[in-house]
Amino acid sequence: MPKRLKLVVAYDGAHFAGWQSQKHGNTVQDQLERAFRRISGTAVRVHGAGRTDAGVHALGQCAHADVDRVRLSPLQWTAALNASLPPQLRVLRCRFARPDFHARFSATGKVYRYQIWSGPIVPPLDYGRVWHLPRDLSLPIMKTAAACLVGRHDFAGFAANRGHPERDTVRTIRRVSVRRSGFSWTLEFDGDGFLYKMVRLMVGALAECALGKLEVREFALRIERGQKTGTRLAAPAAGLYLIRVRY
Amino acid sequence: MPKRLKLVVAYDGAHFAGWQSQKHGNTVQDQLERAFRRISGTAVRVHGAGRTDAGVHALGQCAHADVDRVRLSPLQWTAALNASLPPQLRVLRCRFARPDFHARFSATGKVYRYQIWSGPIVPPLDYGRVWHLPRDLSLPIMKTAAACLVGRHDFAGFAANRGHPERDTVRTIRRVSVRRSGFSWTLEFDGDGFLYKMVRLMVGALAECALGKLEVREFALRIERGQKTGTRLAAPAAGLYLIRVRY
Repeated sequence: MPKRLKLVVAYDGAHFAGWQSQKHGNTVQDQLERAFRRISGTAVRVHGAGRTDAGVHALGQCAHADVDRVRLSPLQWTAALNASLPPQLRVLRCRFARPDFHARFSATGKVYRYQIWSGPIVPPLDYGRVWHLPRDLSLPIMKTAAACLVGRHDFAGFAANRGHPERDTVRTIRRVSVRRSGFSWTLEFDGDGFLYKMVRLMVGALAECALGKLEVREFALRIERGQKTGTRLAAPAAGLYLIRVRY
Repeated sequence: MPKRLKLVVAYDGAHFAGWQSQKHGNTVQDQLERAFRRISGTAVRVHGAGRTDAGVHALGQCAHADVDRVRLSPLQWTAALNASLPPQLRVLRCRFARPDFHARFSATGKVYRYQIWSGPIVPPLDYGRVWHLPRDLSLPIMKTAAACLVGRHDFAGFAANRGHPERDTVRTIRRVSVRRSGFSWTLEFDGDGFLYKMVRLMVGALAECALGKLEVREFALRIERGQKTGTRLAAPAAGLYLIRVRY
């Protein structure tokens, strides 16, 4: 029976070529697998809850790995992995999980955050961490549009193709929040699952609504119909944060 | 009569070798002077309110430059400079000042912030922006010690030599605040002026007090006596932020 380790990891997406392993690639998965290999002396496969794109940040990404060979406590694993990882990628905590736990397939939900900066100049310490949209956005319109997303819908209109089309594009969004503080806009999406680029396409459409370029009625229809219609705007990766994975 | 431009600039200190110009150096002053030269076609000297060390961040550093040759409005200067600067360095605003305005000599005060992270693991997005001090710090002791700094004192005990000794080491600190939110500690210092490395040496001593390594009585004596005594701990540059320059 494998000894399965569950990890919660955080990273600064600007420093990595996304989550998924690449040949000679500086990806989060590569970094984690290299760290496991250094500690255990053998190849260890790390499975993530989801593949974040290059530039996307994580405050609470989850992953699992089988670690039969090495006798370390979860606290020791956390320390050993962090000693081997770059500071832009940290294991926040580890614990042993049941052998049938799977970071991706056991997940029951995820929370994403999206940051927009609507001021004329992006503060240097926020560079690479926000979508710079120096425009006059309407908060009430964005809130009205965001409310249309809540519930169980066919989100085919908010999915990008990842080579193969998704079979099932129905997802449930439990909660969407839109907050504004000065030029800083924070959007949060809590749902049972998200299609490829779904959050970025939803944010792109919400921004179009808030700019008056897309009618909320049209936006609502796009959700109802579950169809891809016209040109779609994907918000940039830099503003996206994976906050939490629910199990 | 020179046309003097006053600038408010912000930067991510991790990307620059400090403020002060160096030969072939990627410093903030070099970057600004290069941008002015590109716009005006002539060498322009930029004077800063103070020279921040490598790694120190700024949310509101001030500077001035004489720009007689080019007819641009302050808004146009802001846009033109930012178009020529890296995104980790931004001109937040410009305005024309009186010809006798001097970014350094006209300053009547400065506000610095210092960030400490006392948790076991630094969040990746805070890397390079905090002092990692994963220890049990006492908030009441740090507050008591910080209060001793307020007022007019000889801060010779909190100054580093910059080649030449400072003649006058008397400064007035108007306000010090210490706040804690979870593992995140925020210290703010508002004073009429600060000696070289003064904030970092004060933070180092405050941390020693909060760790029980330095008696608050000893700390208070160091302020009263105005003397350098024993080994002194300078908090790292990464946690320091120049917030505002008062005129």
